[in-house]
Amino acid sequence: MMKPHIYFNSNIDSPEEWKAALSQHFPNMQYSVGEICDDPDSVDVALVWKLPNRGLADFKNLKAVLSLGAGINQLDPARLPRHVPLARLVDDSLTQTMVEYAKAATFRYHRKFHLFERQTREARWTFVPATIARDTSVGVLGLGELGGAIAKALATEGFNVSGWSRSQKDIEGIATYCGQSGLAEMLAVSDIVINVLPLTDDTRSILNEEFFVQCKRGACLINMGRGHHLVDADLLAAIDAGQIQAATLDVATVEPLPPAHPFWMHPAILVTPHVAGISTPESASVAVAQNIRRALNGEPLAQQVNVSRGY
Amino acid sequence: MMKPHIYFNSNIDSPEEWKAALSQHFPNMQYSVGEICDDPDSVDVALVWKLPNRGLADFKNLKAVLSLGAGINQLDPARLPRHVPLARLVDDSLTQTMVEYAKAATFRYHRKFHLFERQTREARWTFVPATIARDTSVGVLGLGELGGAIAKALATEGFNVSGWSRSQKDIEGIATYCGQSGLAEMLAVSDIVINVLPLTDDTRSILNEEFFVQCKRGACLINMGRGHHLVDADLLAAIDAGQIQAATLDVATVEPLPPAHPFWMHPAILVTPHVAGISTPESASVAVAQNIRRALNGEPLAQQVNVSRGY
Repeated sequence: MMKPHIYFNSNIDSPEEWKAALSQHFPNMQYSVGEICDDPDSVDVALVWKLPNRGLADFKNLKAVLSLGAGINQLDPARLPRHVPLARLVDDSLTQTMVEYAKAATFRYHRKFHLFERQTREARWTFVPATIARDTSVGVLGLGELGGAIAKALATEGFNVSGWSRSQKDIEGIATYCGQSGLAEMLAVSDIVINVLPLTDDTRSILNEEFFVQCKRGACLINMGRGHHLVDADLLAAIDAGQIQAATLDVATVEPLPPAHPFWMHPAILVTPHVAGISTPESASVAVAQNIRRALNGEPLAQQVNVSRGY
Repeated sequence: MMKPHIYFNSNIDSPEEWKAALSQHFPNMQYSVGEICDDPDSVDVALVWKLPNRGLADFKNLKAVLSLGAGINQLDPARLPRHVPLARLVDDSLTQTMVEYAKAATFRYHRKFHLFERQTREARWTFVPATIARDTSVGVLGLGELGGAIAKALATEGFNVSGWSRSQKDIEGIATYCGQSGLAEMLAVSDIVINVLPLTDDTRSILNEEFFVQCKRGACLINMGRGHHLVDADLLAAIDAGQIQAATLDVATVEPLPPAHPFWMHPAILVTPHVAGISTPESASVAVAQNIRRALNGEPLAQQVNVSRGY
């Protein structure tokens, strides 16, 4: 039976819940938490949201760094130990909650509930005819684990789904695009644009003025990626110009979104407090335990990340 | 080739669009519109939302009355000709739009968008953890053509779906109930209650104080049936008591909902202007044309209604 020494560090995840979940898989594990680790030499795996302040240099026998996030942008690449493989978290519960959030936000725009919310507050009974899903085009930015699952789920709902990714992908039932010209092509026909790109130097600020100009007039935006994908002022300008109709924002550059931020009071914007994807230690620990076993066996990690590429 | 004489009467449907759609099926049809019909003796089929003021007594060779509604409650039973079969409208587009509305309204409550809409207007970033669909129980009132389709579609989404109908029905993947005790049992566990019952003497005012008392505390209501199913004052009292958390109302006792009605300004209520189910003449005429053929051939109608039962 494996007795891994797992080092845990996070300011947003519960070390106790993770300990309980991991001990289901490794009853005899050693588990260290927080900035100070008494026995760094014996640590096999670091399971972290953030790196400890002193980094991981003392962990001389480290076999893997496992991110507690679906992305790794919260980990400073310069402070990551070279030659130790890094993996991001993929969790069925995370994927399912992201997919359900995407459905909730997409159906809301598709069936004009965002307009009816406003009409209700204005005591206005104005008929807006319903369309069926295949008459609504949805463009998904990012076709990885999460984006691919979202695109497939919305296609199953009957929406007319396209997807865009850095490298060309083939997904059944979805029109896929890549590159700058592919992006323009997809945006021109999408009634709803969903962002689930990873945050990298290439994608930072991708949702900017130039992007919005390429959108179909009156498109709705759903940002489930990261706050830094979006240039806030450019979105506000695009909405005020009528180019973008409405936006659902689950992420913000600064979280919690500061009380004075103009997004709060804008009638076309819905802010949700970073709730789209939820990992529970119980569900997430299944994949984490598998990667711990792989690390101890010297096997390649699942969901391994190319640090220089950023995902 | 059949040359039916079709009499059309409605104050909400377009006679021109219906004429264009029906002439695809019957290029040589005779088509009469409105209160006065010059040649009532030769009318084969009456396609009506409302009966003409003088009734249908002059239509001596009438073979069928086809409702332009999914229900027949807009037709006065006492003024319907006896011995002429009556059918209601079933239209794939109607079913699909009803199903998509149910998904939009259900996912909105499931993912707490109704709370986030309020939080956004209050500049409040308060995390509310996401659950997955199987942790949300949905109870559907009415398991006919529409209710059955809605129940099945929500079960496919992963929701924990129950259904209630007058007579016991069996639908795979759905816990079905009937009768008063069955209703109490279902309501006790439903986080979201969707009404798609037909409006009959038995179901009029069914959504009343006694009903809300049986609901799970904090349940959300979606009324896609008819305004007269709901006792408006009882809903407001149940919401103010915290028994019902929120309601989405697509129908009203008086439509358009009058500007002074308290539903408009209630923060827990979303009003949609009777948009859940949309029939287009193009899609609906397929089933109507089939029933016209059946009527002319002396065959039983599809979707035939038992007038005394009301559906």
